[in-house]
Amino acid sequence: MADGSGHITWIAADWGTSNLRVWLMGPGPKPLVSLEAHTGAGSLTRDGFEGALLDLVGPYLPESGHIPVMVCGMAGSRQGWAEAAYHTVPCKPPGFDDAVPVDCTDPRLQVRILPGVKQTKPADVMRGEETQIAGFLSENNKFDGVLCLPGTHTKWVHISAEEIVTFQTFMTGEMFALLSEKSMLRHSVAKGGHDAGAFAEGLSDAMRRPQAVAAQLFNIRAATLVADMAPGAARGRLSGLLIGLELMATRPYWLGQNVVLIGADALSEIYREALSSQGVVAQMADANTCVLNGLRAAYETMQETTA
Amino acid sequence: MADGSGHITWIAADWGTSNLRVWLMGPGPKPLVSLEAHTGAGSLTRDGFEGALLDLVGPYLPESGHIPVMVCGMAGSRQGWAEAAYHTVPCKPPGFDDAVPVDCTDPRLQVRILPGVKQTKPADVMRGEETQIAGFLSENNKFDGVLCLPGTHTKWVHISAEEIVTFQTFMTGEMFALLSEKSMLRHSVAKGGHDAGAFAEGLSDAMRRPQAVAAQLFNIRAATLVADMAPGAARGRLSGLLIGLELMATRPYWLGQNVVLIGADALSEIYREALSSQGVVAQMADANTCVLNGLRAAYETMQETTA
Repeated sequence: MADGSGHITWIAADWGTSNLRVWLMGPGPKPLVSLEAHTGAGSLTRDGFEGALLDLVGPYLPESGHIPVMVCGMAGSRQGWAEAAYHTVPCKPPGFDDAVPVDCTDPRLQVRILPGVKQTKPADVMRGEETQIAGFLSENNKFDGVLCLPGTHTKWVHISAEEIVTFQTFMTGEMFALLSEKSMLRHSVAKGGHDAGAFAEGLSDAMRRPQAVAAQLFNIRAATLVADMAPGAARGRLSGLLIGLELMATRPYWLGQNVVLIGADALSEIYREALSSQGVVAQMADANTCVLNGLRAAYETMQETTA
Repeated sequence: MADGSGHITWIAADWGTSNLRVWLMGPGPKPLVSLEAHTGAGSLTRDGFEGALLDLVGPYLPESGHIPVMVCGMAGSRQGWAEAAYHTVPCKPPGFDDAVPVDCTDPRLQVRILPGVKQTKPADVMRGEETQIAGFLSENNKFDGVLCLPGTHTKWVHISAEEIVTFQTFMTGEMFALLSEKSMLRHSVAKGGHDAGAFAEGLSDAMRRPQAVAAQLFNIRAATLVADMAPGAARGRLSGLLIGLELMATRPYWLGQNVVLIGADALSEIYREALSSQGVVAQMADANTCVLNGLRAAYETMQETTA
């Protein structure tokens, strides 16, 4: 049995499409152990989830007893471990009372999956972000404004009176990855780094003339061929054009609004920089802390309910 | 020796990034044999080009004599067989006098590569399309208007007084392929077909609010999850959104203009449909005929020059 196993009181899990992140929790607020694996929900069939979880947490489990496992994310999708049907906005982020219990072969695991949230018009969905939002609101219950959750699929979310009122998802991160790694632009764009000047120019060009962005993508390739644009500048410009297009579409979400970025990685910093150029001073909140707080809120409700 | 070898007087070759297309020509205007291979310029190093050409045409070559080979496309790029430096707009499409001769090991091959065309501001480049344009103009020398060449990288080209005046390239085709095959949208979008109604709606939405296209991409995924959008409609809508964004950026190219589409495949038909919805009746010209006519014009100039 591995270290710390004697103290585990519950387990928190954020099970996304590509990754499974798990925190082994003791009685205190800090995780005893943090684990991560590439066994994302996208790579598993229904009967593979319990095994994937046990592969990661098995060595830490006590030999007997019941360990509550609070799960959010794509594990709750129709193709996931067990469907936790979407709640519909406007609604509070789902909590323990909405969680779907999952029968496990291993009697030590008491798994519950939190539902995602959907919007009917315009159609939109989230799975996992609602739990980050729950965690953020658990520490900021008077918050009224906009949360932006940058990522592969960035979400912009209107919060009022502890409810998710409306939200919108953007594929900007995935588009950037596809264009910079898989398209013909890969020959022009640096693999990393952030050229703030080229980013700011791309952002400004896209916001001034969003209808021209389609033209300016190939232009990056041509400019590196015939106008000596450097690969770092090409990367910054591509990022600026795509985020500029997103900011044009989300103007009602940030213009004159109280914006908090839930992130903490380099991408969130780029969003902060972009919003700052538009006169919006965004606050930052840590995404890991938020999702863990959201899962903990569900666990604490469970304790109160079953006490 | 294969059939028809006795009649070959010259060879036409369109050597793109992904494919090599070759026509074995006799004394008449029609090819004796058409050949195609996946030995595109993107997959070859400099010393691989002659071998790749011989693999395809070797069996048809006479045992002695000299066969002119007119080549256009990426074989003339810096990383290609031999660099044929870009001409700069405004200019006529390059012809035989601009072609770069290539030394071959096989004495029967007399290879000449036609240059591409570049534009300095905004930076843009073409290699191969200029020869389609030359071919189109060889039969329509009074043409004044706009040529649209749909493809992976669609080109819009202003023609006046037999010159390429200005042009602009769009990655719409490549974006569509990446989004429909490699992004999360692949789970929502049909593999083929064309839903004209969904296409028209996507086109109209993008042209009305180009700044919102970034939002409407993820919306396609969500709509198939929570609003029963069919995969065929999702494909049509994605195509409509992307081509709509392109039409917004190219408005000066088509609004009130005399437009000819050089294509003939399903994609050109979709562009024709899109332009038609904007009140533009585009004519169609066959891309294969155009590129062959362009290569023939170079061959005929060579004959006149050396006669």
